[in-house]
Amino acid sequence: MHIRQLLVDARACAGPLDDADALAGAVDDAARAVGATIVERARARYVPHGVTVVAILAESHVVLSTWPEHRLALVDILLCNDMMDPRGAWAVLAGVLRPAEIVATEATRGLVASTPEPAIG
Amino acid sequence: MHIRQLLVDARACAGPLDDADALAGAVDDAARAVGATIVERARARYVPHGVTVVAILAESHVVLSTWPEHRLALVDILLCNDMMDPRGAWAVLAGVLRPAEIVATEATRGLVASTPEPAIG
Repeated sequence: MHIRQLLVDARACAGPLDDADALAGAVDDAARAVGATIVERARARYVPHGVTVVAILAESHVVLSTWPEHRLALVDILLCNDMMDPRGAWAVLAGVLRPAEIVATEATRGLVASTPEPAIG
Repeated sequence: MHIRQLLVDARACAGPLDDADALAGAVDDAARAVGATIVERARARYVPHGVTVVAILAESHVVLSTWPEHRLALVDILLCNDMMDPRGAWAVLAGVLRPAEIVATEATRGLVASTPEPAIG
């Protein structure tokens, strides 16, 4: 089993970091873009600003948190399906967040894979 | 602003990885242990097994996902309050998950701190 995680610090974002509906829609779109299935959602709107949006997936989760006052968004995409590339989900979020600069970290979480990765196609 | 993240891969867990109520309670306790405020919760129970529990905090979030069939749990603790140490939250979760082995990664997310860290006390 491979569990792939992509963490992105999105800086100097031009997107709507304080618009909970727009961000929740972006997270949904990001999950769908990689073929993931959303099984639960949660969100919080902070006072005076900031949003956290969570999508729990059949294949793990996407979490997006924003600090509009710093034009900062943090993204955590965890996918436990070998066929799904978290970078595809990030690409959708990037289109909405529109960061000028990103710091991205990819990791394989969990157990060392015990089976060969299946070939695509 | 410091945003501290602790990622833990908890392996060979002896704890109740398929008990959503126990895990949700542990996440609540973990958040409270560092003085964090829970503003929203979500959870999913997978078929045939596995649980994801999310607590959105005033200070960011805790996400716990389990794969009971692999005795594996993944924990993500993100805290944007300098006074809160994610390791305190992990200690509570460790007591419930009871892993035989962990791989832990700490990171500072977001912007480079632009203000001095306040002194404690």
